[in-house]
Amino acid sequence: MTDGRRPEDVRWMRRALELANGSLYLTSPNPRVGCVIVRDGRVLGEGATQAVGGPHAEVCALRDADARGESVRGATVYVTLEPCSHHGRTPPCADALVAAAPARVVAAMGDPNPRVAGGGFARLRAAGIEVETGVCLDEALALNTGFVARMGRGTPWLWMKIAASLDGRTALRNGRSKWITGEAARADGHHWRARSCAVLTGIGTVLADDPKLDVRYVETLRQPRKIVLDPRLELPLDARLLDGTETLVFTTREDPVRSSQLAGRNARLICLPGPDGRVDLPAMMRWLGEHEVNEVHVEAGERLNGALLRAGVVDELITYLAPVLLGDAVGMARLPVLDDLAQARRFGFFDVQCVGADLRVRARSPARWNALRALACESTR
Amino acid sequence: MTDGRRPEDVRWMRRALELANGSLYLTSPNPRVGCVIVRDGRVLGEGATQAVGGPHAEVCALRDADARGESVRGATVYVTLEPCSHHGRTPPCADALVAAAPARVVAAMGDPNPRVAGGGFARLRAAGIEVETGVCLDEALALNTGFVARMGRGTPWLWMKIAASLDGRTALRNGRSKWITGEAARADGHHWRARSCAVLTGIGTVLADDPKLDVRYVETLRQPRKIVLDPRLELPLDARLLDGTETLVFTTREDPVRSSQLAGRNARLICLPGPDGRVDLPAMMRWLGEHEVNEVHVEAGERLNGALLRAGVVDELITYLAPVLLGDAVGMARLPVLDDLAQARRFGFFDVQCVGADLRVRARSPARWNALRALACESTR
Repeated sequence: MTDGRRPEDVRWMRRALELANGSLYLTSPNPRVGCVIVRDGRVLGEGATQAVGGPHAEVCALRDADARGESVRGATVYVTLEPCSHHGRTPPCADALVAAAPARVVAAMGDPNPRVAGGGFARLRAAGIEVETGVCLDEALALNTGFVARMGRGTPWLWMKIAASLDGRTALRNGRSKWITGEAARADGHHWRARSCAVLTGIGTVLADDPKLDVRYVETLRQPRKIVLDPRLELPLDARLLDGTETLVFTTREDPVRSSQLAGRNARLICLPGPDGRVDLPAMMRWLGEHEVNEVHVEAGERLNGALLRAGVVDELITYLAPVLLGDAVGMARLPVLDDLAQARRFGFFDVQCVGADLRVRARSPARWNALRALACESTR
Repeated sequence: MTDGRRPEDVRWMRRALELANGSLYLTSPNPRVGCVIVRDGRVLGEGATQAVGGPHAEVCALRDADARGESVRGATVYVTLEPCSHHGRTPPCADALVAAAPARVVAAMGDPNPRVAGGGFARLRAAGIEVETGVCLDEALALNTGFVARMGRGTPWLWMKIAASLDGRTALRNGRSKWITGEAARADGHHWRARSCAVLTGIGTVLADDPKLDVRYVETLRQPRKIVLDPRLELPLDARLLDGTETLVFTTREDPVRSSQLAGRNARLICLPGPDGRVDLPAMMRWLGEHEVNEVHVEAGERLNGALLRAGVVDELITYLAPVLLGDAVGMARLPVLDDLAQARRFGFFDVQCVGADLRVRARSPARWNALRALACESTR
């Protein structure tokens, strides 16, 4: 993309990103988008995408300007994602903008949705509106990584959340893990649950800990779906996570009786056996992509963590490290013994924060991030 | 200590700390000290402590001022440690300052050396010089943690350097560890070797890897001593670390023949059997404190790391984490299985840096750091 941005463009785009961030827990499976309309350094209107079926950010900002008695004609519109050009659940935002006739639209990134993919920008330009793209692209992509992944490659963005000691131990040998990291880290973990479309765990964790897997430490109007990997259909019908939230149970065998029992708990059985007799994890990811899951938040034990890593479906690690060494205890991921360090799949660190007394360390696949980034750029051509 | 420092005091003390930092690899077992003499915002002279037997920072700065034809009378002297008041290898710096007659001396911290411990400040005040202390105390203590530990509690400050994967693995099961972390992390590790008084390892590492344990990636005029824990006296006389640098071999049995052979390689045998038949690690730390070792840099395997942790002699962890998960591989420290997380000894994170593609995460015992900090304050009363 370009260098030498105008400072005011970056400033207002940051405000638009803030607005989008305010919808972080709300809009899935739609992207979180923020929009600010500005003239002569003064805000005429602001908005962020609302829950599914509600108005998009651009329309919210146009309505806000209208409510303030402001005309948008000749103004600059800052928006964190290319305005849509198709009739989805709402009419095209590009048309609403054309009708309002701003002089200029600045967008952080293109929309890789094949039904948009440059069409929004084209419509604006055709109406004589100046369009600039790529301002704060990385920040905008970080807000909607999962949406771009689903649109661009057909599968969700999957992160694995792990709380561990500095020497990578997630539980004592007797199973105790309460608590290695502190309350601030646990609360931060719920932020990631809240923004995800689905929280995934394995049957081992369900049987051992009976987790609720819901979002508790942060306020949210929406609960993510739940996913349980349960190859042998051991999920008890009284498991705490079966609380009425939509649950997906991936398994390896059809079982109409069980299926109907689970349906009564709003849980759907999906049978995806792989060639090794386990759940076919890449197929599961494709299934999730086809069913509007943008971001998958994994909280599982070392066995499932290892299986997901071996299957190559992990895009990102979100690890909370406590300042303690535990030695002989349970690890982060069960992986086969390597002969050579070159065989290990490397991630790249990109974000480290102090969270209470612990560290939050995020690492992601550089190749996969760059592939999404290219998509977000490409559709701005 | 105090708040509301004058901004210029902090500014000039930072310069004095920079000068001290320039002597980081040079002065052991003496502390690294920097000194700046200032009048009306202009530097009259600067200096840092030189190698053992050479002049201290204050004398270097006074000489520098003299060489520039500047009189120090009425000026302000910034020094990172209380000027010494005793005849050691050089005459007392406090006397040299009194003779130069500055109006004011600002010190970062007191000297916990029982032969100083406030005596330097008292002499300055008795001569009518205004004394202020505690400016940038934490930064100054970080430069001389080991010196303060040796003076204040009689044992060195010991840090354990560990290079590992994000899941805490330091080597593959086949022993391969080249390389989990990158070259930048290895070079950074040599910085910590270079500032230490001694690099400690175990006989297991010597027999497996035959390390040199010298400082290579950074320039230094001084090599730290080497320490090998070798309970059964298995150290080969042709081990690469026996390169003529002074080496200490801690063991559990007297062996005059071996002792004399090792003496020929500048290695000294020290027999400190503990009640469990292993080397008595707390006794080793006291021995090192009595023999002018300020800072011990440990690079050992999981077995010795575990023994040092269990013995409670580890003050700090310096871990380099690579963005990779290795699963079934060698851990950081072999520690007994715990029943309860409350049994684990907690450190506190205090410094995280990116080093190449890796992270350097430092953690220390908050109680031990605070004990040294109290010593550095106390002697300023």
